Amino acid sequence: MSKKPGEGKLTVTAERLQSHIDRLDPYLKRKLLPFWLDHAVDREHGGYLCYFDRDGKPTAKTAKTLICQLRNIFTFSSVHRAGLGDGRALEAARQGVEFVIRRLWDAEHGGWYWIADRQGNPIDDSKIMYGQSFGVYCMAEYALASGDPAGMEYAGKSFDTIMRCAADTSAGGFWEMFQRDWSLKPGGAYGGDRKTLDVHMHLLEAFTALFELTRRPAHRRKLNEIMRLLVGRMCHPEFGTGMAQFDADLRPLPAILFRSVWGSDRDTETGARPLNNTNYGHNIEMCWLLKHALDILGEDPAPWLPAIRRMNDQALEFGVDWECGGIYVEGPNDGPAAQTLKEFWQQAEVLVGFLDAAIIFGEQKFWDAFENVMEFVWTHMINHEVGEWYALLERDGTVKWDYLGHEWKCGYHTVRAVIQVLRRLRALQGRLSA
Amino acid sequence: MSKKPGEGKLTVTAERLQSHIDRLDPYLKRKLLPFWLDHAVDREHGGYLCYFDRDGKPTAKTAKTLICQLRNIFTFSSVHRAGLGDGRALEAARQGVEFVIRRLWDAEHGGWYWIADRQGNPIDDSKIMYGQSFGVYCMAEYALASGDPAGMEYAGKSFDTIMRCAADTSAGGFWEMFQRDWSLKPGGAYGGDRKTLDVHMHLLEAFTALFELTRRPAHRRKLNEIMRLLVGRMCHPEFGTGMAQFDADLRPLPAILFRSVWGSDRDTETGARPLNNTNYGHNIEMCWLLKHALDILGEDPAPWLPAIRRMNDQALEFGVDWECGGIYVEGPNDGPAAQTLKEFWQQAEVLVGFLDAAIIFGEQKFWDAFENVMEFVWTHMINHEVGEWYALLERDGTVKWDYLGHEWKCGYHTVRAVIQVLRRLRALQGRLSA
Repeated sequence: MSKKPGEGKLTVTAERLQSHIDRLDPYLKRKLLPFWLDHAVDREHGGYLCYFDRDGKPTAKTAKTLICQLRNIFTFSSVHRAGLGDGRALEAARQGVEFVIRRLWDAEHGGWYWIADRQGNPIDDSKIMYGQSFGVYCMAEYALASGDPAGMEYAGKSFDTIMRCAADTSAGGFWEMFQRDWSLKPGGAYGGDRKTLDVHMHLLEAFTALFELTRRPAHRRKLNEIMRLLVGRMCHPEFGTGMAQFDADLRPLPAILFRSVWGSDRDTETGARPLNNTNYGHNIEMCWLLKHALDILGEDPAPWLPAIRRMNDQALEFGVDWECGGIYVEGPNDGPAAQTLKEFWQQAEVLVGFLDAAIIFGEQKFWDAFENVMEFVWTHMINHEVGEWYALLERDGTVKWDYLGHEWKCGYHTVRAVIQVLRRLRALQGRLSA
Repeated sequence: MSKKPGEGKLTVTAERLQSHIDRLDPYLKRKLLPFWLDHAVDREHGGYLCYFDRDGKPTAKTAKTLICQLRNIFTFSSVHRAGLGDGRALEAARQGVEFVIRRLWDAEHGGWYWIADRQGNPIDDSKIMYGQSFGVYCMAEYALASGDPAGMEYAGKSFDTIMRCAADTSAGGFWEMFQRDWSLKPGGAYGGDRKTLDVHMHLLEAFTALFELTRRPAHRRKLNEIMRLLVGRMCHPEFGTGMAQFDADLRPLPAILFRSVWGSDRDTETGARPLNNTNYGHNIEMCWLLKHALDILGEDPAPWLPAIRRMNDQALEFGVDWECGGIYVEGPNDGPAAQTLKEFWQQAEVLVGFLDAAIIFGEQKFWDAFENVMEFVWTHMINHEVGEWYALLERDGTVKWDYLGHEWKCGYHTVRAVIQVLRRLRALQGRLSA
């Protein structure tokens, strides 16, 4: 593994690209997808099982979180759109759509419940924007994959409910933590008075899929607005990197852990993080989602490239572990990483993002960063016997949290990343041969 | 007429209050209401006639503007809610609701068309936020007056469409000028890149009526948000008075006249107004609408009183014509009025607002300002033979524009003001006798 990124122009060869494709394509088709296709669907009650141990066996926990249900719908729909899954993926998505509409949609107040039991009875009927955004994202992707009018209907209903109940028409952005009736939760640890990069970044992918589906002017504008909000108001004015939390007026705040039930979280401390702190995986995910949004919009990416470059440069300098491989969790903007564990979703997102940067800027260092993380993922993160990735590794690759599925971990990050990486590798190949 | 406002505590007597009531109550019941009840409804095509000359006769113009149609619905509904009109007002409202839903509502894209011909065929299918806000306002008031589920349905649809298509989720506030499909109009003179105090103030009254109707937490929040936006971002940081126009990021801009068809406008110049310029009538209207919103919300007015006081003080100092009576149009924040004509709607709004200020702050000067404008209105503004008010007077009360109804002039300002003034006079009476 290269201890330092290369310099100058991108010099990757067609053979090198092919070797990655030859490894990833069979892995996707024979290992990763089959695991989720065989195990995710709850054939007894509908929807999806969430909890899988390191061997891919369902655990004793059977709660159905909104995020996990909706992310599975997204994943299977996107698999079908990518021409994979032989129709099984679409059917897996379809039954999930039927389940969540029947059990998790609140026909009275609008929006999606947060957690249900295995049968689909709501356990926590909060309305959490993080989950609501996936309502838009997964239903739009499902509609694009299937043409099923229910997808269009509930993508629209999810979006309309967000706009009706959660948009902050005074300061911009969206409120995030609500009771069932869309009254705000208390402030502080309950999050009722905070806004986060996380939620607004997920709205970016959601509004992109929605606009791809509807092509409506209002949806184009909402997508443009969330892009401007993220880059213009949620990125650090000096460093250009994402800041995690804000008050109602979008002034940055030291990030705290919220008390809502998220299930697994790497960080269980209640103290606030320092303000000079950024999450490399989030930043690079934002970068490739921005570029994807621009592609869907058909708009010139030039005005956005400086922001994308700054986040990629910062992650390359401080986020990539050039010694052990992979991407760290987070750290100050202008110094070494403070949290050097390796989380599965951050590895997944930077694979896509670094490859994007290599294509956009044509520089070797971004390719080297991609290969660095790819190698780390292949060697340490993937449970090759089962197919899916472990949740959390020590810096050196030792498995720390070994389960494969939980409240919000499913195929969403991993399957999406592999599909997106393969798409970019082939695009690069096409460019070399052109 | 007093040449100067009094000082110190409010000292009005019960007899003085009664003399105003004895004049206004019969005027409302025997002159003003009968004029609109007898003339506004288009008995041939449904909806309302807009154009009336100085004698109250319909003119040759027969277009039906959205504002005029919706304002009539509001007016007749509010009359019925005030216990007036003997059922005729409610029926006048009901047929108008039927007409606008059938002819002016865009079932495909959502929202209301801007102008139709007399039969109701759209002539201008733009979506202008000024008009959309009245969709919420009039339908909520109609639902409160009638209990008709169509009112609740279209108040909700109007609000949802505004939120879905017009809220600016990046910078806050609302975009204002749209094509039929909710794509923004061009910037500059077409207004697609501007935000105005005017539209956001009308959203204040609209969201107040909506919350009064639904009592939903999300509607309470939108009302709170528009209040914060108006006072916190659309009022002058130094003078506390309203600023007219802003760019997308709510930075104040010199106000220009937009090219959309508003019909009559006092100001036909295309040059921009100076930045240090404020409209007394708008400010005082905002004040009483804020206080009314707080009453409906059941929230403590204390945090808002400094803002209300500053606008009232400024209008008293520079806006009231202590010599000829009445309120001027506009002028710099810190000097004499620049535009000394007397417009009908500004007289109407300050009658309510000055009386409100007298009640809130218990000071004689606000009562004197009320009496000053009341006397001017009674002597010069009202066409007593017909009932309704003239459109525009010279400073000394000479009639300049003599028509009684046009694209946006109907009973909305005048009937509402008289009803609201009578309500406040009686409240003051009750306080004196308590």
